[in-house]
Amino acid sequence: MHYILKDENAIYYEVGFSCDNALLIVVGEEKYFITDPRYTTEAKEHIRGAEVIEAKELVGAASALLRRLKPKKLYYDPKELGCIELAALQKLPLVLAKRPHLSWKKRMIKTEEEIELLQTSARLNRRAFDDFASFLCEAEGMSEKRLQFEAKRVLSRYGEYDLSFEPIVALNENAAKPHATASSKKLQRGDLLLFDAGIKYRRYCSDRTRTSFYGKDIKFTKEQNFSSKRVQKAYDIVRKAQEEAIKRARPGMMAKEIDRIARDIIDKSEFQGTFVHSLGHGVGLDIHEMPFINSKNEQILEEGMVFTIEPGIYIPNEFGIRIEDMVVLQESYAKVL
Amino acid sequence: MHYILKDENAIYYEVGFSCDNALLIVVGEEKYFITDPRYTTEAKEHIRGAEVIEAKELVGAASALLRRLKPKKLYYDPKELGCIELAALQKLPLVLAKRPHLSWKKRMIKTEEEIELLQTSARLNRRAFDDFASFLCEAEGMSEKRLQFEAKRVLSRYGEYDLSFEPIVALNENAAKPHATASSKKLQRGDLLLFDAGIKYRRYCSDRTRTSFYGKDIKFTKEQNFSSKRVQKAYDIVRKAQEEAIKRARPGMMAKEIDRIARDIIDKSEFQGTFVHSLGHGVGLDIHEMPFINSKNEQILEEGMVFTIEPGIYIPNEFGIRIEDMVVLQESYAKVL
Repeated sequence: MHYILKDENAIYYEVGFSCDNALLIVVGEEKYFITDPRYTTEAKEHIRGAEVIEAKELVGAASALLRRLKPKKLYYDPKELGCIELAALQKLPLVLAKRPHLSWKKRMIKTEEEIELLQTSARLNRRAFDDFASFLCEAEGMSEKRLQFEAKRVLSRYGEYDLSFEPIVALNENAAKPHATASSKKLQRGDLLLFDAGIKYRRYCSDRTRTSFYGKDIKFTKEQNFSSKRVQKAYDIVRKAQEEAIKRARPGMMAKEIDRIARDIIDKSEFQGTFVHSLGHGVGLDIHEMPFINSKNEQILEEGMVFTIEPGIYIPNEFGIRIEDMVVLQESYAKVL
Repeated sequence: MHYILKDENAIYYEVGFSCDNALLIVVGEEKYFITDPRYTTEAKEHIRGAEVIEAKELVGAASALLRRLKPKKLYYDPKELGCIELAALQKLPLVLAKRPHLSWKKRMIKTEEEIELLQTSARLNRRAFDDFASFLCEAEGMSEKRLQFEAKRVLSRYGEYDLSFEPIVALNENAAKPHATASSKKLQRGDLLLFDAGIKYRRYCSDRTRTSFYGKDIKFTKEQNFSSKRVQKAYDIVRKAQEEAIKRARPGMMAKEIDRIARDIIDKSEFQGTFVHSLGHGVGLDIHEMPFINSKNEQILEEGMVFTIEPGIYIPNEFGIRIEDMVVLQESYAKVL
């Protein structure tokens, strides 16, 4: 298969190097990395198994190369290329063929080396959760915005690590918005605190969520005691849904079957219909990638896939709960990373 | 003129509210803000002079609306709309016409209210520069990465303000890369430190650069004493180029004439050819917007335009110097914000 890639992580996966202005052309066994003069020196140092081509205008250079190599058919991912690039490539004497999720599909089953990187990423992230919990014990009265800033400090180790995404620190009813932005609301004893965060380790993402009670102290363990009975009830159901889904996930199942396990537990409770998003998503170089674990996806899950399991209950204007871990599918079970 | 906007700042400019999933349709005097259910409540509260339309699929709703309103011609900015949106709009019985920089052109001359916001933004940014200088006095031995993190802490006031862009803290030869990324290089007495940063105040950006000597202490003033004679010479030339360009900028000049003033001063020195980027750019809701102050732009500058003046000298593997301020064109001169 001959193809063209533009996405930074898609290219990194193929040749071990990438930058924010590059195209990768793969024709048969040959790979060509096209970038502008800012990046060629570094590219030549770090790239694995590709020829580096320097060009000011990347699509022009790609077109010239393809005219020379003459592949009959070239695949591309429609979410990677823009109108201008497509228009240029359409002028070439070849069949330009859409292949949605071209790179994601290749990356779905992780290598052992990738699983190790993801495990390290998850481990460093867990440690940051613990450090953030220690910080929070003394953080009464701080706003969500300030807490989000402090979370970034702890997660990034003062800028040493990149983050997988902007961390979410949401209190009480703000936790009911699955993608809340930080407000000026201040942390008080007795609050519910939802913390969803991840770091990158050598470009590999981690992702984790805990929902905890802020009493005398706070811990990001699954054991929690909320002062409200209703919140505790919802929490116990989310926890059960999450643990059951992890316990029963197996290679050979369809993605939607795992979603179903967790969703059934929530929908058979008084909180029916409050789990408003999908159960999980693949994690790797991208924070959201395949396989997507939702109620419709019939993708068969295989050993080596890494994804999140993150059910939730959201009661608008009251509270929100989510518990999330990353798992890797082993031969006969799902192992939490 | 009838038009469609998608860019968040372009829409905010028209109706005082925006979000990351919206389309604005303007047909004659009527404005329609189309967004998904996550944002409609907030939109209805804050929007000025537009009808809010809730839709799950925005382009579909836009198409239906346009079929009803029947404008003969609809303008769009090619950098705002994607292939999918364009394909949908092309099916409508109207002429779809490109208008590059549609919103930027409208926003080029700032209102008095906008100039006040930009002035406040610049003032808060200057104060953060001073606070960061105080911090730096005790920061010997910290890595560029750590310094970048601390800069974000000071600039954002622990997360209270958004930043205009990722701040640049670059030492010595790293300052020679106009868009350096932070490294593990550690700050030492005797270093040259380039600091390029800006915050947002009520969405309006600021942007400022200082290059300073890290001796017993550090100050982000223009008066600097470097230990290297060569660096001092380069610094004095950049400073002269910057101050002359500011002094001589007037409404009625072409953008390229201001660029020429600064570039001539550098190119007539021993550092000829080392000023490798353009002199400046407009600043407003976007950190980079019109007018662009470069060697080719024949745009006539007018009262009320706000832009940066930021010449530099870059000697690869040695050092880089840049001095940047924001100015607003008044009736007869350029006032530093």
